[in-house]
Amino acid sequence: MITHTCVFRLRHAGGSAEEAAFVAAALELAAIAGVRNLDVVRQTSPKAPYSHCLTMEFATQADYDSYMAHPDHVAFTRDRWDREVTAFMILDYEPLGRQPVPRPRPGAAPVAGRTTTGTSR
Amino acid sequence: MITHTCVFRLRHAGGSAEEAAFVAAALELAAIAGVRNLDVVRQTSPKAPYSHCLTMEFATQADYDSYMAHPDHVAFTRDRWDREVTAFMILDYEPLGRQPVPRPRPGAAPVAGRTTTGTSR
Repeated sequence: MITHTCVFRLRHAGGSAEEAAFVAAALELAAIAGVRNLDVVRQTSPKAPYSHCLTMEFATQADYDSYMAHPDHVAFTRDRWDREVTAFMILDYEPLGRQPVPRPRPGAAPVAGRTTTGTSR
Repeated sequence: MITHTCVFRLRHAGGSAEEAAFVAAALELAAIAGVRNLDVVRQTSPKAPYSHCLTMEFATQADYDSYMAHPDHVAFTRDRWDREVTAFMILDYEPLGRQPVPRPRPGAAPVAGRTTTGTSR
């Protein structure tokens, strides 16, 4: 399970009609196949330069990739996000138990008990 | 409900014994009164300079403040976090429905329907 978050600073004031309209548009992304538990929340730590966070979950990396390429997501990014968000950072979370799989060194013997799937970061 | 997160970069390699020891020490913070659903997860977006996230929930701001001041949290920060974490950012999340309450302007008449409690950020 992947928790995909975009923490961002919105151009509009908290409580404004413009904020509400942006949030409503973002919440419509929940209709894209594979998106689970989508929400927009307020970021309240004064130590970070962000006002909100868009968060959602994907069961698989394929669902994540499908969302990224979906026309509704692409349109939202172009028509709303790029115009109304002044700063953002993407943070993706996965359970710690799922260890990254080291990328095999060229010529190295296979390591017992490890598969060749997964990512090395 | 406040979701308190610290996204951070750990000095140790993923999968190392040092990583496991740090995570085990962080998970012990769950014993502090008021801490709910504490977890350490992996941060996997290559677009952010962080490797992990410590996340927990508090029912109230008083629980949050109590955790921050708790001797076990202070000791963890001093003995582990400050030595083994090379970069971090605190991000706190609250439901969007809970609007920040504007700080009254000096001399302004009270605004009907608003209390004087809460924070203005």
